[in-house]
Amino acid sequence: MTVRFAILGAGRIGQTHARAIAATAGAKLVAIADPVAAAAQKVGKSYGCDIRTIDEIAASADVDAVAICTPTDTHADLIEQFARLGKSIFCEKPVDLSVARVSRCLEVVEQTGATLMVGFNRRFDPDFMAVKAAVDAGKVGDVEMVTIISRDPGAPPADYIKRSGGIFRDMTIHDFDVARWLLGEEVHSVMAAGSVLTDPEIGKLDDYDSVNVILQTASGRQAIISNSRRATYGYDQRIEVLGSKGMVAAGNTHESTLELADAKGYARPPLLNFFMQRYSAAYGNEIAAFIAAVADGGETPTTGRDGLMALVLAEAALASVKQGRSVLVSEILG
Amino acid sequence: MTVRFAILGAGRIGQTHARAIAATAGAKLVAIADPVAAAAQKVGKSYGCDIRTIDEIAASADVDAVAICTPTDTHADLIEQFARLGKSIFCEKPVDLSVARVSRCLEVVEQTGATLMVGFNRRFDPDFMAVKAAVDAGKVGDVEMVTIISRDPGAPPADYIKRSGGIFRDMTIHDFDVARWLLGEEVHSVMAAGSVLTDPEIGKLDDYDSVNVILQTASGRQAIISNSRRATYGYDQRIEVLGSKGMVAAGNTHESTLELADAKGYARPPLLNFFMQRYSAAYGNEIAAFIAAVADGGETPTTGRDGLMALVLAEAALASVKQGRSVLVSEILG
Amino acid sequence: MTVRFAILGAGRIGQTHARAIAATAGAKLVAIADPVAAAAQKVGKSYGCDIRTIDEIAASADVDAVAICTPTDTHADLIEQFARLGKSIFCEKPVDLSVARVSRCLEVVEQTGATLMVGFNRRFDPDFMAVKAAVDAGKVGDVEMVTIISRDPGAPPADYIKRSGGIFRDMTIHDFDVARWLLGEEVHSVMAAGSVLTDPEIGKLDDYDSVNVILQTASGRQAIISNSRRATYGYDQRIEVLGSKGMVAAGNTHESTLELADAKGYARPPLLNFFMQRYSAAYGNEIAAFIAAVADGGETPTTGRDGLMALVLAEAALASVKQGRSVLVSEILG
Amino acid sequence: MTVRFAILGAGRIGQTHARAIAATAGAKLVAIADPVAAAAQKVGKSYGCDIRTIDEIAASADVDAVAICTPTDTHADLIEQFARLGKSIFCEKPVDLSVARVSRCLEVVEQTGATLMVGFNRRFDPDFMAVKAAVDAGKVGDVEMVTIISRDPGAPPADYIKRSGGIFRDMTIHDFDVARWLLGEEVHSVMAAGSVLTDPEIGKLDDYDSVNVILQTASGRQAIISNSRRATYGYDQRIEVLGSKGMVAAGNTHESTLELADAKGYARPPLLNFFMQRYSAAYGNEIAAFIAAVADGGETPTTGRDGLMALVLAEAALASVKQGRSVLVSEILG
Repeated sequence: MTVRFAILGAGRIGQTHARAIAATAGAKLVAIADPVAAAAQKVGKSYGCDIRTIDEIAASADVDAVAICTPTDTHADLIEQFARLGKSIFCEKPVDLSVARVSRCLEVVEQTGATLMVGFNRRFDPDFMAVKAAVDAGKVGDVEMVTIISRDPGAPPADYIKRSGGIFRDMTIHDFDVARWLLGEEVHSVMAAGSVLTDPEIGKLDDYDSVNVILQTASGRQAIISNSRRATYGYDQRIEVLGSKGMVAAGNTHESTLELADAKGYARPPLLNFFMQRYSAAYGNEIAAFIAAVADGGETPTTGRDGLMALVLAEAALASVKQGRSVLVSEILG
Repeated sequence: MTVRFAILGAGRIGQTHARAIAATAGAKLVAIADPVAAAAQKVGKSYGCDIRTIDEIAASADVDAVAICTPTDTHADLIEQFARLGKSIFCEKPVDLSVARVSRCLEVVEQTGATLMVGFNRRFDPDFMAVKAAVDAGKVGDVEMVTIISRDPGAPPADYIKRSGGIFRDMTIHDFDVARWLLGEEVHSVMAAGSVLTDPEIGKLDDYDSVNVILQTASGRQAIISNSRRATYGYDQRIEVLGSKGMVAAGNTHESTLELADAKGYARPPLLNFFMQRYSAAYGNEIAAFIAAVADGGETPTTGRDGLMALVLAEAALASVKQGRSVLVSEILG
Repeated sequence: MTVRFAILGAGRIGQTHARAIAATAGAKLVAIADPVAAAAQKVGKSYGCDIRTIDEIAASADVDAVAICTPTDTHADLIEQFARLGKSIFCEKPVDLSVARVSRCLEVVEQTGATLMVGFNRRFDPDFMAVKAAVDAGKVGDVEMVTIISRDPGAPPADYIKRSGGIFRDMTIHDFDVARWLLGEEVHSVMAAGSVLTDPEIGKLDDYDSVNVILQTASGRQAIISNSRRATYGYDQRIEVLGSKGMVAAGNTHESTLELADAKGYARPPLLNFFMQRYSAAYGNEIAAFIAAVADGGETPTTGRDGLMALVLAEAALASVKQGRSVLVSEILG
Repeated sequence: MTVRFAILGAGRIGQTHARAIAATAGAKLVAIADPVAAAAQKVGKSYGCDIRTIDEIAASADVDAVAICTPTDTHADLIEQFARLGKSIFCEKPVDLSVARVSRCLEVVEQTGATLMVGFNRRFDPDFMAVKAAVDAGKVGDVEMVTIISRDPGAPPADYIKRSGGIFRDMTIHDFDVARWLLGEEVHSVMAAGSVLTDPEIGKLDDYDSVNVILQTASGRQAIISNSRRATYGYDQRIEVLGSKGMVAAGNTHESTLELADAKGYARPPLLNFFMQRYSAAYGNEIAAFIAAVADGGETPTTGRDGLMALVLAEAALASVKQGRSVLVSEILG
């Protein structure tokens, strides 16, 4: 079976998925939709697909699956619309900034039986997959502590931050998902601290740029997440799992393996700076996993519930910072 | 000036200091005291010094300085006794397990004007000193986040744990001191989570073996400390400082630089396993710094107040775990 | 201008170039030729190109350039045939196993003015390019020594070795080219030693599996090349340049950045094992460089002369092993 | 048994051994001799030993062993003198610059049955010992290739070079010994190339500053040695052994484990620059091994023959450079 795709939204991430779909055996890019005609045309021309409106796509018999790459506040409505049409749905995270809205949306998905995958690209990074495989193979024994150091090279523009739902929902959300994935047990309580250290403008938007979070499960496993919106040396992405038998870690990716030694010492280049470059293999693997799930009728590796739970942890972390206390996941989930 | 030393306590750490004093120009080991005659004799023979009781040492005109290496519950009394005698005092951490007792002891020290150094060996590790020097030289700009991953190879015996004051006062106390040193600003509030994951016996003693701590200063700088009582791969000691301009880190020390590559991959030996081996240079530097301070009449690089503040952070962390909330340093210090 | 390609030979390397051409903007794969119909059809179907014979391709007006991926003993004839037809030519190394034959072939190329690029993929590896760029930027000062450690995971089959011209012409030839590229000065003399250590069958074919070579230029710069046909830990590819101001090196590429630590120590995965995987980016960059040269009418980054000189060094090395003496390049070139 | 020592020569290396002997249980430094009174007095005062002339030491009943740290041209005579007196002898490399003179000296040693150890400090470096132990334990299978990259931070003064016997006898001699040790089979033939690249003054002394050597054993094992008298980034000391099952390597030692990351990339400090610092543990282990051999009456780990064979390889390498051919060890040994 060839999965016939339409992409909703021709922005940066839409283009990434277009490229990945075009390069994947068993998938075909049929149509692209974007209110900005030039953006849609660019994708249409590059990959030889139709340009249609979202409503036209909804009415298209030759589309099996959609990739939702539109602004966040449209995600939940689009998921519901296409779920009711029986299309398979790949949706960029987050489903919505509100836990209640996500929950309602997932109910619709459940009622319709639609296939939904929420995009958490990091689970598809080859290095992180190797960590997860080592953990699942019992190489570190029982998981005890997950350590995630995740720093962006620089903060997004103020306009983006305003609509982002804040650092926990926008940036840490990826780390919450990775932590859940690696802990192998649902999180029970959340403690977090937040500061504004890189740019006072971020504080004016009532957001943070430097946060640390401790997650704890019912059995006492812990994860620690350390985020900053600034890392001058590149996109710092480290994960580590400590267990009863040992520890496994994935390292960073530098621009090259070059090492220069001179009278000042040894120098290596900075880390890959841009998330699309750092996670280019991950984006390809992610869409391939969705295609495989649609083709086989199997479960998607990341689900609507994964999207919901990462958002719940984000809300719990924000509440912890604001209230200076440990917040239970059950307080947020209700 | 040659600083004439007596060591109180001929156990493992007393022997370490004996060796360091004997090897340091400008110092002379005059006497050793220990209730266990064999232990005292061993040191006496190895380094050619007298064996005296603590009271005899207190009465000795040929002793300028004492190194207190006795059990913790004797530290504060001995500090006060020797401070009143005008001796210079090097005391192993902690001064006492009670903040109140430490505070009273430090008042005595202050009144007598005695020189007191509390032993925080890590500040004297060459790699950690290189990190601190880089921070002080402005290499990372303004300090934003300190990350300390500190894991013991294995837990001490239950008997030791019982008298230790718990993981925060016994193990994390070193990391609290390192965090204070590197943050460059006093800690304002503490959040911590604790679990029992490596050995249920530790839980029966009402202690934890796996803890994570977030420290925050008034200006928003943060430090994160991750501790475990078990690391199968050796004594894991990593520190990292993120600042506005960059990041600086000290790495671990392996048993050797050997790397073996075969069909299974690349293999390096475990980390140095024993704290005395890992910090052997640090112990030498530490006692040399004390000797220099006594000889010059200058300030000691680690002070009674450093001992007090690390203990305060330990109490705050314990309160945070117990109460599930952020605890202010001022709540503990009073 | 779009460069319209035909590929001669649909084997492993022909398929690699087909994929690269199909993925490169400004190039179009028009036809594939292979005496094995199934092989040609596979490429034809995957990339939607015609299947033609070599003679049909020679007669095709819609072909601007050919990639010669046929057996080595056909390369020189095909280069001459297509050079006379005015086609641009990309040819896999080596042009021929005989220096005299290569020289005659290059004369034809020169007379016809045809564009010829000989494929030395390593010059297009991003890490090696970073080394070259650092050298060219003067980061190491004047080049003094080039060190190349290059080991194959395992030997090719006896049948392949028989037709290969021996290890120097088949395997070391890549390192000779890299050495010339990095030395920045033509080689003057060659010393080499050869052994049979991994498989006595290789010795029966009068070949070696373990060789070391020292190259020296007129000004005294030296390069050292160390080859083995066996490296259990993967495809070992290291280069290093020492100069008056410092040293620059490119490291190996492991299967992932994963590091596992347990009671046995720290373990990383083996190196990428397969040359197509290790140099996948290089193959893409290489064909893109050829396309750019054809489109712009400029010089190709690797030339027929590069192919010739690497072969000359191979012959000199072989003579050095056989005769136990330093061999001058001028002895071979005539 | 306590081994009672006299040291002949109070220069840099004599002081190093004095310190090591003083710190080793089972050894006692009795006397020091040096024609420069101040040098002898410094050692005498630091370690509380007598100052005697060499002849007085020869006549001393309270001396069991001597460490010969005098200029090279006195070594052979002193070895013979003390061998005839029945003293145990530790002698710094080389025994002499002439193979014939060394051979005669070793005959005297053999006749007298004296214990002689020639100082090759690198065999006692903990990291190199770990490599050797891995090889001996069969971790890499059958040894095939030894790779030694050994670069001094800078050339010694012209005066030193004049009397040194040239780079092969002075610097490479250490690598020859390490190669013999790791190859596990005697060297059969030598090829070498030499250049003057770092300082034309070295060329005026008819010496080289940049050399590469290929050693081959009868069974075809090979070692490659790459030397330079200049490495701006510190004292570069790498060894690697490739075998049928894998590869083992020892890495360099940096000034600290510090890594600094900023917008320019990742930076580590240079390598330890000074051989006494780099090999400080080796010097201690070396003298301890000698003391153990003397005390136990066993064989020394490095012998007079080791000293001879390293010198033979040096002469063979020099002949190879001068004559542009492979030189057999048997040509030099006679």
